[in-house]
Amino acid sequence: MHENSEADAGNKPRRMDSLIRAIADVESRMLSAGPPVGRRTLLKGGALWAGAAAAGAMLAPKSLRAAGYPVQDDPMKEQGRAIGLDGGYGSRSQFETVARYPFPTPNPFASFSLSPLAESRGIIMPSGLHFERHHAGIPNIDPASHELLIHGMVDRPMKFTVEELKRLPGIARILFIECSGNSFSEWKGPLFKTVQTTHGLTSTSEWAGVPLSTLLGQVGVKPGAKWILAEGRDAAGMTRSIPLWKAWDDIIVAYGQNGEALRPEQGYPLRLVIPGWEGNCQIKWLRRLKIGDAPFMTREETSKYTDLLADGHARQFSFVMEAKSVITFPSGEMELPGRGFYELTGLAWSGKGTVRRVEVSTNGGMTWHLAQLDQPVLPLAHTRFRYPWRWDGSEAILQSRCTDETGYTQPTRQALIAARGAHGRFGSLYHFNGIQSWRVRTDGRVENVAA
Amino acid sequence: MHENSEADAGNKPRRMDSLIRAIADVESRMLSAGPPVGRRTLLKGGALWAGAAAAGAMLAPKSLRAAGYPVQDDPMKEQGRAIGLDGGYGSRSQFETVARYPFPTPNPFASFSLSPLAESRGIIMPSGLHFERHHAGIPNIDPASHELLIHGMVDRPMKFTVEELKRLPGIARILFIECSGNSFSEWKGPLFKTVQTTHGLTSTSEWAGVPLSTLLGQVGVKPGAKWILAEGRDAAGMTRSIPLWKAWDDIIVAYGQNGEALRPEQGYPLRLVIPGWEGNCQIKWLRRLKIGDAPFMTREETSKYTDLLADGHARQFSFVMEAKSVITFPSGEMELPGRGFYELTGLAWSGKGTVRRVEVSTNGGMTWHLAQLDQPVLPLAHTRFRYPWRWDGSEAILQSRCTDETGYTQPTRQALIAARGAHGRFGSLYHFNGIQSWRVRTDGRVENVAA
Repeated sequence: MHENSEADAGNKPRRMDSLIRAIADVESRMLSAGPPVGRRTLLKGGALWAGAAAAGAMLAPKSLRAAGYPVQDDPMKEQGRAIGLDGGYGSRSQFETVARYPFPTPNPFASFSLSPLAESRGIIMPSGLHFERHHAGIPNIDPASHELLIHGMVDRPMKFTVEELKRLPGIARILFIECSGNSFSEWKGPLFKTVQTTHGLTSTSEWAGVPLSTLLGQVGVKPGAKWILAEGRDAAGMTRSIPLWKAWDDIIVAYGQNGEALRPEQGYPLRLVIPGWEGNCQIKWLRRLKIGDAPFMTREETSKYTDLLADGHARQFSFVMEAKSVITFPSGEMELPGRGFYELTGLAWSGKGTVRRVEVSTNGGMTWHLAQLDQPVLPLAHTRFRYPWRWDGSEAILQSRCTDETGYTQPTRQALIAARGAHGRFGSLYHFNGIQSWRVRTDGRVENVAA
Repeated sequence: MHENSEADAGNKPRRMDSLIRAIADVESRMLSAGPPVGRRTLLKGGALWAGAAAAGAMLAPKSLRAAGYPVQDDPMKEQGRAIGLDGGYGSRSQFETVARYPFPTPNPFASFSLSPLAESRGIIMPSGLHFERHHAGIPNIDPASHELLIHGMVDRPMKFTVEELKRLPGIARILFIECSGNSFSEWKGPLFKTVQTTHGLTSTSEWAGVPLSTLLGQVGVKPGAKWILAEGRDAAGMTRSIPLWKAWDDIIVAYGQNGEALRPEQGYPLRLVIPGWEGNCQIKWLRRLKIGDAPFMTREETSKYTDLLADGHARQFSFVMEAKSVITFPSGEMELPGRGFYELTGLAWSGKGTVRRVEVSTNGGMTWHLAQLDQPVLPLAHTRFRYPWRWDGSEAILQSRCTDETGYTQPTRQALIAARGAHGRFGSLYHFNGIQSWRVRTDGRVENVAA
């Protein structure tokens, strides 16, 4: 029993008056010792506090800082780690090893990594685990060197620094991003084993930035303009054409992710966020937007990122990621320890808006049941669904299907292949949104199957 | 112009069929080389992928792994960092230095750190920047050694491992937590200078776990039970009494934060999350819940965490954090570079539910204007507000006030002090939710004032 512990007697309230005044003095000295407070501080005020954090850490015993933080057998009998020893930026427990899975492509500069969906429990993916797709590696950009140029069919071509963008009216939205190649292997069959490898090319973050419409208002778009070329500042010079109407609607020029700056893998210091559309058009390390009257027919939208159909035609500019869902627990390579109660849970989303309902089947689609959705359901974001299930020990095929606000329902794999074709060099790669099937074997093992 | 770049020719779609099969083989080998897939894997499947990530990293040239990642003057002319060199868990840019501010209390084991609100742009605070409050340091707990005991007035005392809790029906909610001591210095006056030091003891995260009501259903609560003692597994044995009705309503036994496990500073591997209530009762490193028929009168709710009023009585069990808001931009110690347009922005919240409206004044409260709220407004979470302002160069006092769904409006500092008193040893410390005032001087400097 520790109900009357005096462990933090060193910080007694009765001393608070004088303490507050002493601390105010410390704060003043730290602030006055910092860099001059000017425009740079206005927009990057955090640097002050990095200094302050260092000052705070100096109050801790030197021996403790050097000694590391051993696991405590009985943490109630010895004090834990003192505050401020992490440089003011925390890290996860040494016991946590969940990781992105870097796909072993032959070229590690043109590759991707997948988010650990099996471990997710809500809808937010931590920035350190957000999926990646790079065409020529991850640039390391000094934000002070970075500008966004907007030109082409505009009245006033303009360049914006990152600091200038941060001063404009902002917006923050919780949104999913999905690579159009997510689940690409499922066109062929259940070759990959886990939900991380079959579905991990999607993640949800809170994205913060400036509505692109605001910037278009500043440069003045000329009559007849219909498309935007977006170009990234990477060695691939990644470029896509985007319809102008979408920019007037909801595109964000983002500088923030999950409460801090974009991560380097996500386009630091600037990227496009295009709600509901395929990831490859949401250009990272964004440096240039050119306004034109027609699509620019870049490599990425001619030789790549098109969808060849069975009749030989190709879908082009297939931007929208259609309704999709997947059960993340249980999922491939897990093993149920025995019969009894399990909560099936997973993620659902739609590039066309809000998830209206998710249904779950435990018998390969013969019967379907409504799943519960975590509230509130956010438009164009992952939605967490849950379904209570009692496993009787017999073989089961677990499936989920999503219906979005337009009434569209995620198709079966067979129906999707019948409509789009599974053949060809390119047609088989993108926009797989068929129903995913996990088989629970009688021994409890869970495996990917094409049911 | 890079519209026809061939930078990732190494990953051509035409080779994808054979590539997919080759990769499926790699995945199979990695999975079979891992630990046996059993109960442990079921609930900690991420370990598999940590191994996979290491395997992926080995595909990158050794020289690159060793060399570090220099800043690129022209990132369009050289490839960036290869994928998978971060161990599958990304980190922020070297140019980002925003940090928590560890408060320089005399005892660094009984201390707190404040979130960098001035840098926040949405509502989510990254786990590494979430505010901290520790009474005896941060324990380093092996989750395999950790159990939650529920006993007292119950039919079946039970212990739960973390893995057992994860198997139960879950919940995830985006919620603010605020230390009851947030803004404590403002009872005295504008002694602290920045919004991080005046208001940084609150942060919003997505919390995931099990409804405490589910656990109470399992143990069976005896008639007459009305209170819960919650005890943490830290050297302070931090303990608080919590009314049982709140547990039936919405308390969460949380194991997850922002899409991954709780951070050590936030109670890894288990904590209480009590929506809308003061942080100190949301016990971290949670080890024990004892059900009783009366409050347990722990040190934390008798000598501390009470609010002495002017008439000598004290408010006790003052759990709810009432409606509050603060302008984060501009805020103390910033400097406006000149007259012209600024978007005032900040955070508002209420422990009683949803923020109904936020009003902004730029003249010290003489006139008020409705601010715009980022949608959707989530109950019991931070709400981002924005207000467009044209600064004419004259002195201005910037204020915000929050009204919640109950109709309660955040009071002025003077009204709050008149109602609660600013005197005494304890009465002046907790539950300050008065309107915050920032003065913009004619030279553009922004400072904390008691307007």
